[in-house]
Amino acid sequence: MDLATLLGFVGTIAVLLGAMVAGGGITPFIDVPSFIVVVGGTITVVLSQVTLAQFLGAFKVAMGAFFNKTTEPEILIEEAVELANIVRKEGILALEEKEISHPFLQKGINMCIDGQEPAVVQRSLANDINFTIEHKSISIVVFDASTEVAPAMGMIGTLIGLVLMLGNMDDPKTIGPSMAVALLTTLYGAVIANAISAPISKKLTLRMNEEKLSKKLILESIEGIQEGTHPKVLEQLLINYLPESKRDAMMVEEE
Amino acid sequence: MDLATLLGFVGTIAVLLGAMVAGGGITPFIDVPSFIVVVGGTITVVLSQVTLAQFLGAFKVAMGAFFNKTTEPEILIEEAVELANIVRKEGILALEEKEISHPFLQKGINMCIDGQEPAVVQRSLANDINFTIEHKSISIVVFDASTEVAPAMGMIGTLIGLVLMLGNMDDPKTIGPSMAVALLTTLYGAVIANAISAPISKKLTLRMNEEKLSKKLILESIEGIQEGTHPKVLEQLLINYLPESKRDAMMVEEE
Amino acid sequence: MDLATLLGFVGTIAVLLGAMVAGGGITPFIDVPSFIVVVGGTITVVLSQVTLAQFLGAFKVAMGAFFNKTTEPEILIEEAVELANIVRKEGILALEEKEISHPFLQKGINMCIDGQEPAVVQRSLANDINFTIEHKSISIVVFDASTEVAPAMGMIGTLIGLVLMLGNMDDPKTIGPSMAVALLTTLYGAVIANAISAPISKKLTLRMNEEKLSKKLILESIEGIQEGTHPKVLEQLLINYLPESKRDAMMVEEE
Amino acid sequence: MDLATLLGFVGTIAVLLGAMVAGGGITPFIDVPSFIVVVGGTITVVLSQVTLAQFLGAFKVAMGAFFNKTTEPEILIEEAVELANIVRKEGILALEEKEISHPFLQKGINMCIDGQEPAVVQRSLANDINFTIEHKSISIVVFDASTEVAPAMGMIGTLIGLVLMLGNMDDPKTIGPSMAVALLTTLYGAVIANAISAPISKKLTLRMNEEKLSKKLILESIEGIQEGTHPKVLEQLLINYLPESKRDAMMVEEE
Amino acid sequence: MDLATLLGFVGTIAVLLGAMVAGGGITPFIDVPSFIVVVGGTITVVLSQVTLAQFLGAFKVAMGAFFNKTTEPEILIEEAVELANIVRKEGILALEEKEISHPFLQKGINMCIDGQEPAVVQRSLANDINFTIEHKSISIVVFDASTEVAPAMGMIGTLIGLVLMLGNMDDPKTIGPSMAVALLTTLYGAVIANAISAPISKKLTLRMNEEKLSKKLILESIEGIQEGTHPKVLEQLLINYLPESKRDAMMVEEE
Repeated sequence: MDLATLLGFVGTIAVLLGAMVAGGGITPFIDVPSFIVVVGGTITVVLSQVTLAQFLGAFKVAMGAFFNKTTEPEILIEEAVELANIVRKEGILALEEKEISHPFLQKGINMCIDGQEPAVVQRSLANDINFTIEHKSISIVVFDASTEVAPAMGMIGTLIGLVLMLGNMDDPKTIGPSMAVALLTTLYGAVIANAISAPISKKLTLRMNEEKLSKKLILESIEGIQEGTHPKVLEQLLINYLPESKRDAMMVEEE
Repeated sequence: MDLATLLGFVGTIAVLLGAMVAGGGITPFIDVPSFIVVVGGTITVVLSQVTLAQFLGAFKVAMGAFFNKTTEPEILIEEAVELANIVRKEGILALEEKEISHPFLQKGINMCIDGQEPAVVQRSLANDINFTIEHKSISIVVFDASTEVAPAMGMIGTLIGLVLMLGNMDDPKTIGPSMAVALLTTLYGAVIANAISAPISKKLTLRMNEEKLSKKLILESIEGIQEGTHPKVLEQLLINYLPESKRDAMMVEEE
Repeated sequence: MDLATLLGFVGTIAVLLGAMVAGGGITPFIDVPSFIVVVGGTITVVLSQVTLAQFLGAFKVAMGAFFNKTTEPEILIEEAVELANIVRKEGILALEEKEISHPFLQKGINMCIDGQEPAVVQRSLANDINFTIEHKSISIVVFDASTEVAPAMGMIGTLIGLVLMLGNMDDPKTIGPSMAVALLTTLYGAVIANAISAPISKKLTLRMNEEKLSKKLILESIEGIQEGTHPKVLEQLLINYLPESKRDAMMVEEE
Repeated sequence: MDLATLLGFVGTIAVLLGAMVAGGGITPFIDVPSFIVVVGGTITVVLSQVTLAQFLGAFKVAMGAFFNKTTEPEILIEEAVELANIVRKEGILALEEKEISHPFLQKGINMCIDGQEPAVVQRSLANDINFTIEHKSISIVVFDASTEVAPAMGMIGTLIGLVLMLGNMDDPKTIGPSMAVALLTTLYGAVIANAISAPISKKLTLRMNEEKLSKKLILESIEGIQEGTHPKVLEQLLINYLPESKRDAMMVEEE
Repeated sequence: MDLATLLGFVGTIAVLLGAMVAGGGITPFIDVPSFIVVVGGTITVVLSQVTLAQFLGAFKVAMGAFFNKTTEPEILIEEAVELANIVRKEGILALEEKEISHPFLQKGINMCIDGQEPAVVQRSLANDINFTIEHKSISIVVFDASTEVAPAMGMIGTLIGLVLMLGNMDDPKTIGPSMAVALLTTLYGAVIANAISAPISKKLTLRMNEEKLSKKLILESIEGIQEGTHPKVLEQLLINYLPESKRDAMMVEEE
């Protein structure tokens, strides 16, 4: 798990609990029925928009995004240049024995070894990139939905509480506490949306963009390898995939 | 109907009713005039934006999305590969007798058998995909409109209630209950928008994307079959339409 | 006028008036200065964004969208197939005498008869489609602007009322009624935006899309006719412009 | 200045002043510190997003959009057809002496006279269109920013006022007036955003679109003139740039 | 640092402090726990969405955008025309000795000197532009996230304060001050979002667009230089990258 993500989630919990404790303890913030309305309602509304497989898949994709490491693009560039060197000297079939780190690069190289046409290889890999993104983006849809639904359920819960309170105001002493309880669902909804669902959805989006960039890098590598581009030229093309600050470092290291 | 969708709608109702009952019964939440303002007003405003055919069609499309099953892409891939095999061995006309499961695949194969040019077939099928989506998306427009209009009618209802209440505050005892009733329209609007219209609209969008993906898969199948692509190569191209997790399973099964 | 649109506008008025009457009569909801602030302010702010011609044009376009009928695509397809048949048998000049129902189809056929190159015809018609949309979309801009401005003027009116009320609270009895009046501008703004401007803007958008679809259908017809596409093939291409449910009906009818 | 724009701004001021005067005079709406918070704060926040040149440039562009007249497309079409006629009869060099009304048309004609290749002329003019738009759109960014910032500064001002008032509620008589003052910043922010910045930004957008359309018309004219398109055909192409209602008028006038 | 940006940030602080001091001093606006909830919570939630490298990188990119100067496009055009002149007279290798001001221009010229094909040079530079933007835009994501999160944490803090206050209203005297403190988090959130994060994000966007424009200018320069475009023609193409007002100045200066 990324250090920042772990720090972030733990820190947010600490900040919120701290604010409650400093103000007078956690007890006034716990109300089981309010919790059921917001958490339960958010889950049921999101469920009604998707299939069970999509709902459960969203959590699996999220776990993957938090715990799997992505291959650094520098490693991919080095490997691609090395493969291009081998192909230049010994031909494409020399890669048959070669162990390759990234499954998507392996897939492309296998297609080249099988002797498939460059256009077919490019199209197949491009399809892979697009459709993989399309399938994974359903988990972003799930978390975005809960980012929208949670505050709405919070508001619905507060309205239910207000209607009950306003219809029964005989004892003015109960107004304050009733209102406090009514506001709890709004609070829960805001916390779930802003501290949980939205960050997960944004994290997934960033990870998906990284994965897409890596796969586009590999796509361009395969194209270069299959067309017999000079490894130095290929490296110059691929190095653009790195952030500016890392490009020079890689160039220097090379020399 | 998808299990999740059914669970979702039933669960949402259970959560909301539970919250009301736990707080003091359903009676305070029932007010027929408020209900007419929100539900009636939402229907009339949405009606004013569309034609009667579009309005009624929206419900038909929604029903279809909830109750019709989509063909699994795995089945389509297997069928396409089988057809490609037949064409390779016996020519395109051998498909004339063949029973085909998906009407869009059937349509494309028929055009091939009729001897139409690949460019014409591709264009016709691509038009079919685009315009079918365009017509169906009007039902999404209808549900999106009601997602926007319902809370607005809820707010309008509450404002009407507040204006009446504020103009007539002689008896302070009636303020609470009047306000409770005024808030009911806001509550109704929030529930309709967030628990009914928005989930239907999002469900429709997801289903439409699935249908589009299936049709694009078929489009690429037809292209391959007509161009005489090797069935193995075709399969490799099509397998990218599956989510990553199912690709290996299909490959293994094949062997 | 579409039945749904008429029903919609009349129904919305009925629902709102009903809610007011049921609650205590229409009198508390009428306040001429509030009306001037919201309606007048919305008009002046929208005016400041456009030219007088654009402002008045918006109402003309809206009227057109509500009262003019669009030609059904089925009619256009039948006519196009008929024209293609004539051209196939007697050549393009045989269309000179032919009466054609849709002015855009007439325009395209005229260009073909004048012997202009297919590329020029396509470009000219495509320009017509795009620029007609662009000019008409200014009326959507006008109604969207008033959908945004009306609630803002409502809020500004309420703030003016609140500032006056809060600065002068000597007699607590006047607070309620003053506040009721202050809220009226918010109510007017919400009704204008949600029950009038937004539905008109959305209706215009849907009509514009229908018109665009019809013109694209005609564009493709002209292309087929000029290139001498077989009428049967042309029909198969054009039939995709219909919603799925109407395609089979048309095919059956043909046979 | 467009009549509508002038009427709009003057009318909005009249409506707002009228509402204040009718309610009890302008005095309660004037508070210098509140004015400084909202106007000053909006200016400083917008300044922090741009350079001084961009900030001042925005006002210059806005002035230009309000006071400069655009050339009517009808005039441009007539001029282009005339030029095409001259070129057809006497060659492109005959345009050297010709006075041309629109600077962008002049620029394109000059490039043609200099004997530059059509592809270069097209690319240069297309670049001109795109980059001119890109530079001018920064002034839209400035006014959009102030549309967002003004209500935010209004809210911040109101919060500051509320915090001060709530911390010091010993004399209940001061609560009303303090709150009235606190609300003034929200009122100022809403007026600045909705009656000033947003209309200017939208006016600029519409003017920029008109300018873009005129330049695209000229681009297509130059292309036609350089390729020696027949003036009648050129006119038919260009006439599509007009709104539908003006096309027939122009055609009739021609004959 | 841009003068406007500096003026803007200093001015905003002055305006806000002035409003507080004028209203009664800064003390009522300082509450350490509220500050920790909003600032701490915003940082932890943003952290949970990104990696530590992305989080820290965002500040580095922001610093760069505020303190680094961009090369004026006029300078780039002059340099490109000069290089084109040299290449025209002495060939591309004559540039080997030439000192070049902008690293991206240097990179492109180096590729030309190395004798790489125009298509490869163009592709490599275009990749550089796109991926550099993509990497830098992550810092915009970070500041946009905090623009969204800060007001949300402010609202959460206020809800926590309200729940505590409402649950404990025995002494009416404490209600005002408690509420004042509860509102402070909303105030902090609004200030952070509107006066700090949003302006930084927008400044970054504008700077990124400027950088992109400069690099596209260089891309077109390199293309012209490599294809041996006449320097006068190249200048005419490049001058379109300038704002309209500066084009004439440059043309005049040339002569």
